[in-house]
Amino acid sequence: MSARGLFISIEGGEGAGKSTVMAALSEALVARGHEVVLTREPGGTPEGEAIRALLLDPGNHLLPETELLLMFASRAQLVRQCVLPALARGAAVLTDRFTDASFAYQGGGRGLDMARIAELERWAAGIKPDLTFLLDVGVAEGLARARSRGGEPDRIERERGDFFERVRATYLLRAAAEPDRFRLIDAGQPADDVRRSVLAALAGWIEASR
Amino acid sequence: MSARGLFISIEGGEGAGKSTVMAALSEALVARGHEVVLTREPGGTPEGEAIRALLLDPGNHLLPETELLLMFASRAQLVRQCVLPALARGAAVLTDRFTDASFAYQGGGRGLDMARIAELERWAAGIKPDLTFLLDVGVAEGLARARSRGGEPDRIERERGDFFERVRATYLLRAAAEPDRFRLIDAGQPADDVRRSVLAALAGWIEASR
Repeated sequence: MSARGLFISIEGGEGAGKSTVMAALSEALVARGHEVVLTREPGGTPEGEAIRALLLDPGNHLLPETELLLMFASRAQLVRQCVLPALARGAAVLTDRFTDASFAYQGGGRGLDMARIAELERWAAGIKPDLTFLLDVGVAEGLARARSRGGEPDRIERERGDFFERVRATYLLRAAAEPDRFRLIDAGQPADDVRRSVLAALAGWIEASR
Repeated sequence: MSARGLFISIEGGEGAGKSTVMAALSEALVARGHEVVLTREPGGTPEGEAIRALLLDPGNHLLPETELLLMFASRAQLVRQCVLPALARGAAVLTDRFTDASFAYQGGGRGLDMARIAELERWAAGIKPDLTFLLDVGVAEGLARARSRGGEPDRIERERGDFFERVRATYLLRAAAEPDRFRLIDAGQPADDVRRSVLAALAGWIEASR
């Protein structure tokens, strides 16, 4: 391990089981002696959570460009206020989504130009995860799982199936393009198998980066 | 006049008298037979006003990058939802601040890279005003006027004097660089003289663009 901490993102569509995986990773990293910082996007800071509320409120009719800029506003705040200071003190930062989600949702889902998103990534985020777990599950199965949790769907969860198909395809394209950073996890497996796959991938990655 | 409407912005620091000038311009344009649409930044749409509340809340500790992205999120929504449709039907749109304010406040005031702001201007705003009135007044006098209106200062009004000096200088630089678009108005004059100067400048501009 370097003196600088670890920055790990967990990505995936609705109902992919990100929370369960976050918990498993967190436990494994604590057991290895890391300070673990858990966060999420959009949100993770008081200001970012206020932006999140705006983004997810079904009463708001946000245009794609507005949505993208709000995501990066939350991200700019999170990186500088939480992620960079935590990495500087050597912590492991686990985030429930990061910039890959903007490429998947606002790029793939909404059709915004990927080059614009890459431009924002460079200066507003300015950092990429060291390791990204992509939890992949079929759209219909993921949505059924997400709905079974109950509660009202948020503004983005109300999108139609083809939106989520484009999100999924964009995530998979990104994983294929950056195999060193991504670990693709079949999230359609039973939860225990997902957990085992993720922990094995984490251990392998740590071993390889020693 | 072209079939497309007129897009006019009113810029200036705190206490420059933008509201009075908006009212005078609006009256003059209505008298010339225009449909007049009044708006403001940040804000001007339900979503933009929610973003404005976030931006101005003194309880929020927004980083410069977050502030810039929120300004453009509000602007992206305003342009597409309000400004472009109004211009398409031939209306005159008067806005209390537009992208010049991001150059002045987030560029000059906060020190963010002007090239980043120009990049966002190109795709997130995608439009420039046809005519911009810069109401220029000394920083001390403007702040004294703004304070005499009473009420609690918002998050940006709480900045120190040198911040506003940088904002003013950036506005003046922009006016000098684009003399065709800008009309520089001495807002230190008595209100009646400001009004007269603005209306004369509007009439001259309309005459020249016939």
